[in-house]
Amino acid sequence: MKQVTVSRKAHFNAAHRLYRKDWSDTKNEEVFGKCSNPHFHGHNYELIVSVTGEIDPETGYVIDMKVLKELIKNYVEDAFDHKNLNEQVPEFSSLIPTAENISVVIWEKLRPHIANKNDLSITLYETPRNYVQFSGTNQ
Amino acid sequence: MKQVTVSRKAHFNAAHRLYRKDWSDTKNEEVFGKCSNPHFHGHNYELIVSVTGEIDPETGYVIDMKVLKELIKNYVEDAFDHKNLNEQVPEFSSLIPTAENISVVIWEKLRPHIANKNDLSITLYETPRNYVQFSGTNQ
Amino acid sequence: MKQVTVSRKAHFNAAHRLYRKDWSDTKNEEVFGKCSNPHFHGHNYELIVSVTGEIDPETGYVIDMKVLKELIKNYVEDAFDHKNLNEQVPEFSSLIPTAENISVVIWEKLRPHIANKNDLSITLYETPRNYVQFSGTNQ
Amino acid sequence: MKQVTVSRKAHFNAAHRLYRKDWSDTKNEEVFGKCSNPHFHGHNYELIVSVTGEIDPETGYVIDMKVLKELIKNYVEDAFDHKNLNEQVPEFSSLIPTAENISVVIWEKLRPHIANKNDLSITLYETPRNYVQFSGTNQ
Amino acid sequence: MKQVTVSRKAHFNAAHRLYRKDWSDTKNEEVFGKCSNPHFHGHNYELIVSVTGEIDPETGYVIDMKVLKELIKNYVEDAFDHKNLNEQVPEFSSLIPTAENISVVIWEKLRPHIANKNDLSITLYETPRNYVQFSGTNQ
Amino acid sequence: MKQVTVSRKAHFNAAHRLYRKDWSDTKNEEVFGKCSNPHFHGHNYELIVSVTGEIDPETGYVIDMKVLKELIKNYVEDAFDHKNLNEQVPEFSSLIPTAENISVVIWEKLRPHIANKNDLSITLYETPRNYVQFSGTNQ
Repeated sequence: MKQVTVSRKAHFNAAHRLYRKDWSDTKNEEVFGKCSNPHFHGHNYELIVSVTGEIDPETGYVIDMKVLKELIKNYVEDAFDHKNLNEQVPEFSSLIPTAENISVVIWEKLRPHIANKNDLSITLYETPRNYVQFSGTNQ
Repeated sequence: MKQVTVSRKAHFNAAHRLYRKDWSDTKNEEVFGKCSNPHFHGHNYELIVSVTGEIDPETGYVIDMKVLKELIKNYVEDAFDHKNLNEQVPEFSSLIPTAENISVVIWEKLRPHIANKNDLSITLYETPRNYVQFSGTNQ
Repeated sequence: MKQVTVSRKAHFNAAHRLYRKDWSDTKNEEVFGKCSNPHFHGHNYELIVSVTGEIDPETGYVIDMKVLKELIKNYVEDAFDHKNLNEQVPEFSSLIPTAENISVVIWEKLRPHIANKNDLSITLYETPRNYVQFSGTNQ
Repeated sequence: MKQVTVSRKAHFNAAHRLYRKDWSDTKNEEVFGKCSNPHFHGHNYELIVSVTGEIDPETGYVIDMKVLKELIKNYVEDAFDHKNLNEQVPEFSSLIPTAENISVVIWEKLRPHIANKNDLSITLYETPRNYVQFSGTNQ
Repeated sequence: MKQVTVSRKAHFNAAHRLYRKDWSDTKNEEVFGKCSNPHFHGHNYELIVSVTGEIDPETGYVIDMKVLKELIKNYVEDAFDHKNLNEQVPEFSSLIPTAENISVVIWEKLRPHIANKNDLSITLYETPRNYVQFSGTNQ
Repeated sequence: MKQVTVSRKAHFNAAHRLYRKDWSDTKNEEVFGKCSNPHFHGHNYELIVSVTGEIDPETGYVIDMKVLKELIKNYVEDAFDHKNLNEQVPEFSSLIPTAENISVVIWEKLRPHIANKNDLSITLYETPRNYVQFSGTNQ
C-alpha cells in the first residue's frame, strides 16, 4: 500500500494569555512568566495540517487540497483568526491556550471531517522558534 | 566613501487592536474590519533594524552588531514584547498601533542612540505576508 | 513628511516559455537554454507589491492592506494564476515572459489603481534564488 | 544502534496539468479545478530526499552528501527540471502528475541507488503551502 | 494519552574540519573533499530540539519552553558557539564532527536533563540544504 | 527608461576570525568578543548579487541569470567556499573579514565583469539574523 502524507499550511493571528484562575497572580507569573500578562499578547500562528492515507488511483490524490484548505478555513481560521483565544473561543474557557492545547483542540475540530481510514496530524508554530505536533490520542 | 548598510533581525510578540475612540464601533469595524476586535488579537512582529554608514577602518564595522542587538533589546523588545500595545505601551495611548505607526515609533526610540552621521531604517513584519519600512522623516 | 513603504506578499503558479518566434529553434536554445523548452515549464511566482506614501493620520494606514490584497487578487492572481503566460495572457502574446517583463506588466496593471501621490514597486521571485524588482519608468 | 536520518534539499521547475484522458473536460474541471488548464501551469518543486541508516564509524557519515546530491541530480533534476511532466516525462504518460504521484515516482527512481539497509523518504513541496511525503510501500 | 511533541529552535556558529588523523591527506581529501581543508571552514548550525511527552493537565505544557531554551543554551550553545569543534570541543577530539556525529553528541548532552518519560529528538541543519535527525539509540 | 534590478542568491561556507595583529589579545577580545576566537569559527554565508539596468528589448533580460550565476561561481564561490578567509583568501591577509569588508571585496571582484552601464549591489547574510549591503563607492 502506498501511504502518502499530504500537508497544507495555513495561519491565523490571535491574542492569548497563559494563566489559571485558581492560582494567584504571583504563582501564574512564576509558572508562565510574561506569557501571563493580564493584558494579553499575541502571535501569528502558522498551522500545518497533515493527512496520511492511500493515493486514490483515479485522481492521484490522498485528499483534494482544495477540500482540505476549505476545512481548515471553516473549522480553524474562521474560529480563531483575529480572536482572543481566552475570551472568544469556547474551547479555551476552561483550558489554558498553550500551543500544546491549541494543537489538540484543532485536531479534535478537524478529525470528524477527515475520512476514518486516514490519519491526521497537526503542527502548530507559536513563533518561528517554537512549535508543537499532535497526531491524536494513542489507543 | 564606502557606505555599507548593516541589518539586524529581532522579534517580539504583542497584542493590539485597531480602532479610534472617537469613532462608533460600526465605523471602526467598517474601516479596520476584524482588526478592530475589542478583545484584541496579536502578532509575532519580526523587526529588521538597518544602520547605514562608513566602515570604520580600524574595526571593519559600521556599527558593532553586539551594540545594535543590545539597543534593540533595551529600547524595543523590553518595551513591546508580550505586551498589549494599546494598553501597556504609552506611545500608543493616543496613536493607532498600525504597522506603519509602530515602525515610526521604533525609529523614534532608536534614533537618539545611533550616531548622527549614520542613517537608520526600520522594517517591520506584522505577518509573514505584510510588512512596512520607515527610514525617517524627509526634511 | 513621514513616508512609509507598505508591502504585501502574494503568489501565483504559471507555465511559460522563453523564445522569440522570429528566431530559429537553435538560436532560441542558444540564448534561453532549457527555458526555451517548447513544451513549457513553470514556476511558483512569489510577488511582493510595495506602496510608498504618507501615513493617513486618521487611520494610521498608507493604504488599507485589505484593499491592496484585493487589487492584487483582481488584477494579478486572477489573470495569471494557473495560466500559461505565453498562450493565455494577452500581455505576453508578443512580449517574452521573462521575470523582468512580468514585473513590468504587473506594475502597469496595478499602477492605475494606486493613488497618484503614492509610489509603486514590484518584486517578483521566479524561483527562491532568482528575483527582480521594478519601480516604474524614470521620467 | 545509532540510526540517523540525513536529508538533502534540491529543486526543479516544471509544467504540468491534472486531467484524465478518459474523462470529459467538464469532469476534469470539476475534479481538478484550474489545475486541469489544458495550456498547463507550473511550479518550483522543492524536494527533500531523506536517507535513514547507521552512522559509518569510519567516516561519521550515513551517506556521503556529495553522493546523494549527485544521485538527485542524475535521477531527478536532469529528468524533471524545466520539463513538461505530462508530455516529456515517460513515467507520467499514463499517471496523473499530482504531487502524491510525483513523490512516488521519485522514490522509485532513487530507491535502487540507496543501500538496501537504509530507508528512503521523499518530501515534495508543490508550493510553499502544499507538500507531500512518501516513505515507500508498506510490506 | 495525549502525546505532543514540543520543538525549540536555536543556533550556533562553529568551525570544523572533516578528517582522520590515521589517514593520509590524499585519502582525507578523497573521502571528505573540500570539507577536509586543513585551515577549517564553518557553518551556521540551526538546531531543533524536540521533546515528546504527555501534556501536564495543570500547566498545559509538555515541557516549559523557557526551561528547554535554558537547557539548550547551557549544554549546547555555550559549549559550541563560536568554537572550533575539532580543537575546542572535547567530544570531537577523537570523533569526526560530521553533522551526524554532532547530532548524536547534542542528544547525549541533553538526554540526562530531560524527564525519563519523555522522548528526545535532535534535528541539525549544517546548511540550509543539508540536515540530519537523531532520536536516540534503539534498544 | 525601464530600469529593473535582477538578483541571484548563492552561498558559501567559510571560517574566519576577527582580530588585529597589532592589538593585544585582550584588546581583540574586548572589541570583537567571541568572534576573535584564535581557533576560528564559521558561517554559512548567504549572498545576493543584484544588477540594475535596462531590459534588453530583444531578450527581455537585464542580464542573463545563467551568466550571473557563472560569474558568482567563478569569482566568489570558488574563491571563498570551504575556505579559511583569514588564512587562505589573499584579500583578507591585511583586512579584517567582517561582513562589511567581505561585501566590499565581493563587489570589487564582480564589478569588472558587469557591464559599465549597470549598477551592482551586494547583500551578504553572515547569519540568518545579521546581514549587510554594499552598492559601491559614492563618487
